[in-house]
Amino acid sequence: MIDLRSDTVTKPTERMRKAMYAAEVGDDVYGEDPAVNFLEETAADLLGKEKALFVTSGTQGNQIAVLTHTAPGSEVIMESDSHIYMYEGAAVSAFAGIQPRLVKGINGSMQAEDVKNAIRSDDIHHPETSLVCLENTHNRAGGAIVPLRDMKDIYKICSAASIPVHIDGARLFNAAAGSGTSVKDFASYCDTVQICLSKGLGAPVGSLIAGSEDFIRKARKWRKRLGGGLRQGGVLAAPGRIALTEMTERLHEDHEKASKLAEGLAEIPSLSIENQVDTNIVLVNIGQTGFSADQFLQLLKGQGILAVAFGPQTIRFTTHYDVTFEDIDKALTSISAIISSKVILH
Amino acid sequence: MIDLRSDTVTKPTERMRKAMYAAEVGDDVYGEDPAVNFLEETAADLLGKEKALFVTSGTQGNQIAVLTHTAPGSEVIMESDSHIYMYEGAAVSAFAGIQPRLVKGINGSMQAEDVKNAIRSDDIHHPETSLVCLENTHNRAGGAIVPLRDMKDIYKICSAASIPVHIDGARLFNAAAGSGTSVKDFASYCDTVQICLSKGLGAPVGSLIAGSEDFIRKARKWRKRLGGGLRQGGVLAAPGRIALTEMTERLHEDHEKASKLAEGLAEIPSLSIENQVDTNIVLVNIGQTGFSADQFLQLLKGQGILAVAFGPQTIRFTTHYDVTFEDIDKALTSISAIISSKVILH
Amino acid sequence: MIDLRSDTVTKPTERMRKAMYAAEVGDDVYGEDPAVNFLEETAADLLGKEKALFVTSGTQGNQIAVLTHTAPGSEVIMESDSHIYMYEGAAVSAFAGIQPRLVKGINGSMQAEDVKNAIRSDDIHHPETSLVCLENTHNRAGGAIVPLRDMKDIYKICSAASIPVHIDGARLFNAAAGSGTSVKDFASYCDTVQICLSKGLGAPVGSLIAGSEDFIRKARKWRKRLGGGLRQGGVLAAPGRIALTEMTERLHEDHEKASKLAEGLAEIPSLSIENQVDTNIVLVNIGQTGFSADQFLQLLKGQGILAVAFGPQTIRFTTHYDVTFEDIDKALTSISAIISSKVILH
Amino acid sequence: MIDLRSDTVTKPTERMRKAMYAAEVGDDVYGEDPAVNFLEETAADLLGKEKALFVTSGTQGNQIAVLTHTAPGSEVIMESDSHIYMYEGAAVSAFAGIQPRLVKGINGSMQAEDVKNAIRSDDIHHPETSLVCLENTHNRAGGAIVPLRDMKDIYKICSAASIPVHIDGARLFNAAAGSGTSVKDFASYCDTVQICLSKGLGAPVGSLIAGSEDFIRKARKWRKRLGGGLRQGGVLAAPGRIALTEMTERLHEDHEKASKLAEGLAEIPSLSIENQVDTNIVLVNIGQTGFSADQFLQLLKGQGILAVAFGPQTIRFTTHYDVTFEDIDKALTSISAIISSKVILH
Repeated sequence: MIDLRSDTVTKPTERMRKAMYAAEVGDDVYGEDPAVNFLEETAADLLGKEKALFVTSGTQGNQIAVLTHTAPGSEVIMESDSHIYMYEGAAVSAFAGIQPRLVKGINGSMQAEDVKNAIRSDDIHHPETSLVCLENTHNRAGGAIVPLRDMKDIYKICSAASIPVHIDGARLFNAAAGSGTSVKDFASYCDTVQICLSKGLGAPVGSLIAGSEDFIRKARKWRKRLGGGLRQGGVLAAPGRIALTEMTERLHEDHEKASKLAEGLAEIPSLSIENQVDTNIVLVNIGQTGFSADQFLQLLKGQGILAVAFGPQTIRFTTHYDVTFEDIDKALTSISAIISSKVILH
Repeated sequence: MIDLRSDTVTKPTERMRKAMYAAEVGDDVYGEDPAVNFLEETAADLLGKEKALFVTSGTQGNQIAVLTHTAPGSEVIMESDSHIYMYEGAAVSAFAGIQPRLVKGINGSMQAEDVKNAIRSDDIHHPETSLVCLENTHNRAGGAIVPLRDMKDIYKICSAASIPVHIDGARLFNAAAGSGTSVKDFASYCDTVQICLSKGLGAPVGSLIAGSEDFIRKARKWRKRLGGGLRQGGVLAAPGRIALTEMTERLHEDHEKASKLAEGLAEIPSLSIENQVDTNIVLVNIGQTGFSADQFLQLLKGQGILAVAFGPQTIRFTTHYDVTFEDIDKALTSISAIISSKVILH
Repeated sequence: MIDLRSDTVTKPTERMRKAMYAAEVGDDVYGEDPAVNFLEETAADLLGKEKALFVTSGTQGNQIAVLTHTAPGSEVIMESDSHIYMYEGAAVSAFAGIQPRLVKGINGSMQAEDVKNAIRSDDIHHPETSLVCLENTHNRAGGAIVPLRDMKDIYKICSAASIPVHIDGARLFNAAAGSGTSVKDFASYCDTVQICLSKGLGAPVGSLIAGSEDFIRKARKWRKRLGGGLRQGGVLAAPGRIALTEMTERLHEDHEKASKLAEGLAEIPSLSIENQVDTNIVLVNIGQTGFSADQFLQLLKGQGILAVAFGPQTIRFTTHYDVTFEDIDKALTSISAIISSKVILH
Repeated sequence: MIDLRSDTVTKPTERMRKAMYAAEVGDDVYGEDPAVNFLEETAADLLGKEKALFVTSGTQGNQIAVLTHTAPGSEVIMESDSHIYMYEGAAVSAFAGIQPRLVKGINGSMQAEDVKNAIRSDDIHHPETSLVCLENTHNRAGGAIVPLRDMKDIYKICSAASIPVHIDGARLFNAAAGSGTSVKDFASYCDTVQICLSKGLGAPVGSLIAGSEDFIRKARKWRKRLGGGLRQGGVLAAPGRIALTEMTERLHEDHEKASKLAEGLAEIPSLSIENQVDTNIVLVNIGQTGFSADQFLQLLKGQGILAVAFGPQTIRFTTHYDVTFEDIDKALTSISAIISSKVILH
């Protein structure tokens, strides 16, 4: 199987497995796991924040950020198609009691003026605006990089209004690899940031959130409430540190695979590429093929290729460490054959 | 002062005051207030529902509906500019823990196809869709009437998907007066409905929600939790019943006042009407006048006229029982003078 | 019927009805209702607080206090048998997301040392302690007055720990009438206080919360979210002000009625009084009569007397304005007859 | 250091480390991790339930159980000193919006009659009772085993009242080892159960909840919202399965260590044992020593022994895999010396 469903399917590397085996551990609820502490320090340094906290997933990192920054009955500004709104089971409302305030972005990037207009004025009928969440890269916009300039403009407006900014940076290292801007530079335009170790970076489990010392102290208690306080978490932190320090260097390869895939798909009749392909995600519109998304996925599966639907006529392909350039070639050949057969069937 | 800010400013009539004075009351927490019981039965009959419940405001009625119909971590489909999303302090998320799923309507009316697409599919990442809320008339769309056909189409889709429908009918009697469709006919395309006695109908305080017996039984407990369980509520229910049975007949007068106002405003240079003026609300765009909304409101106030801003360049005027046709004439004269003076000042 | 179920069943007096009829009103959501404003100023003065806010019930006042003082995931210390824990539908957990921390009191009065021990230390496993709630008089302790000294000791401990104190003073005027201590003196040992107008004071509907200006500003928004923002609330505030200024003077009569009732009941064989009868509540143990509480209530009803069960063997009688000394005599005669008939039946 | 703070400090065994290294993994969010699936099946079999779900901690397992079984505004009956009430940051109220209803147990075991009395009757003022939670063994009662008979009686009452029962069985295998009753027999008297792999069983991270297929399906979504949906969770599940199948056999050794420790401590003047020492926990009262708990812990630390305070005069010692019988001897010698020195100092 050529698994292009998500970069989350990557399996731990041999080096990561050895790191797990050898991990020096302790009870992290007491703050005594050396591997966890080392990972958290590494992440804080890389992101230019005072402290970082290991969490079990990107969703948990985002939820903790919202719980820590906000109060119930307030509003959090986020992009209309953001992961935190679309794919986290409405947890921000269930747990933090906040109402999402949606702003439609351009390629996933909210414009500063729109964010400004979405901030609520002081009125008895209005919720307060307690947080702005950005997502970089933006998943549903096809791994689009949110430009540093947009982040800067939004951060300026929010700082003036005393509203904190959080980045869902589950794929921030892809944004860095694709733009040449460092994660630290991106993170300089937010108060807190979440990054994932288990997507393109290949670690088996885990994410981190980073921010001020005070933020992380409060976040630690919310993590405990969510059940994310681990005991010998070092067995995850040890491979996680390899992900964070070694695997970041090779993300550009995934982007090259995605470019190659997008170029190949664009040449296949009746397929069109929907996104810019800034990083490792390709969104293909199959509206002209006559297939529904579900039918198309079934046909792909029959050819040994896995992908996911991103709308009734949109298929998402995601490249990653466990997919080779040869796999991309094979996938293109198979997809081309599927489309041709359709033509023949007609 | 000619107060065109809202129909909520209407004061109780002499008949209502007498009804308060004479109200036969009891302890409604024990279900023993005759005036409350009578009002609730009247409302249930009018709306064609099994039972109704007296609540202290439209917001409380909406919140109870959401609390009763939904579970935390689910999504409620509502119009992007609806009252429940814009003006209830994010209470649906704070109390019921639900995430609003926004659909942009046409003149405040969501289209059935868009509602259908907003219903979530079964996926571990998705919240369940637990409720659809409509608003009729739609406040921010300028008192626009949501057409019966749209309601019917949405109700059909929701029934098929086992998703209940709630109407925020704070001004449903205006919709009835403006369309010739009865409130019972409107309410036949929803599971629960909220109506207000304190807006165009002139009662001092109060709203009602109506639905099935089972719904109202559960709603009663949520009302208690919200602190809406009154003791001798009959002192509000007695004037409320006058509002519900007598004041509904005269709403068309408010609509005529609004039409007159809109026609007059349309003739004043540099003003333009933004809405259809289906009922008792007029939205005026002042973008061409050179005034900001705040400046314009100040000038109006100087002339003895009150209105509210509905955007940086939009003013909302609302007609009601305590504003006469003569008041409309006076208002038009004053507004015309304000605009002229601006021209002179230039 | 001699209705001794609760002082909430009192009906508005003629003076109150006239006040409703004549009330000068406005839209209180805009802060423009003169009768509401006057009532709130009167209450703030009486209680020695900066500001007060009219709410529709004691439950709503308590809920607003908890919502305003606390954050989710924190703990509120309260007496094990307090109204807010026993009778508000778990709303403090449903809406404010707080966990009640229970302390067993002596006659409803928590002891300062126990409160101190219930305050949580700083630990990753512990919720923060965000509020202490007292109830004076204490309903389930039979209208017991919480001594001023206890309140003072608790307030001192809480102030030192920067934990605010709220009083559920639904019957604080009974505590004042029964102890000779003014409500202002009681309220001086708390940050916020809730008082009811609709119990012994006889108003048809309404309560107030009082506290600092900042507290009331935030409380006002929570009231709006709960749906407690009224329009022409003056129709309730006008009789409420009579309750607050005139009816407080006569509460000692209700206490005398309760004493008379308790003395009479104590003389009836097989009945025993469970509480001190500090104010207007009498708790009678019927364990020796052979009747269950439900049976006993049925027999009382047959004799034209209403009361409520407060446990499997406990009946609560509450005296109030609408019950006369003659009613007490009649009730005693009837109860005596019920007990005698039982003896005969055996 | 002889670390007697908790059995959570145990480090993964060599076999567990090898299992991590060799784990066959997949993306568990897609349900494709073989090691996770195998662990979940093993746990379901052992506990006699249809399905099980891997979670990252006991707290997460308990929270998911409460979120899945209950609705906001309801009450969950639990023991006054239970872990879920004392040590989970009030998360049950913050996330599930439920109010704990406390029942004081005998040695941590609630009596069926008290549970029955704590179930709320149908009344507008009352929350519904939605769940009963037991804890076996009971941590704060010193690892006391809740007798099977008590569980049976409670389950019978709850079944009759259609109220589900959840066991916090973080140390259920200790209860089994200490009583000779199987975990399956214990679990037969509940609807859902949580067990921990990371305490006496020595796995680095993880717990499981088990129940009906329908329960686990809903629980899976709540786990996702809490951020507990892992990717290649097999790296934790593989050592977890060793914990579950091999380490359970040796728990009796921990109990023998605890007995030895308790016997030794009981002989030291001015120390007294507070609990029955059913399993691996010893609670020692140091009230007669003249030391505060904090002082005593400091002195222990100076002697290379770690323990925790469980009250102002109570020290908890917990035995586990990484503490030997020789360590117990050494600890007793050191503690004896500390006490003697105190005597000398006097």
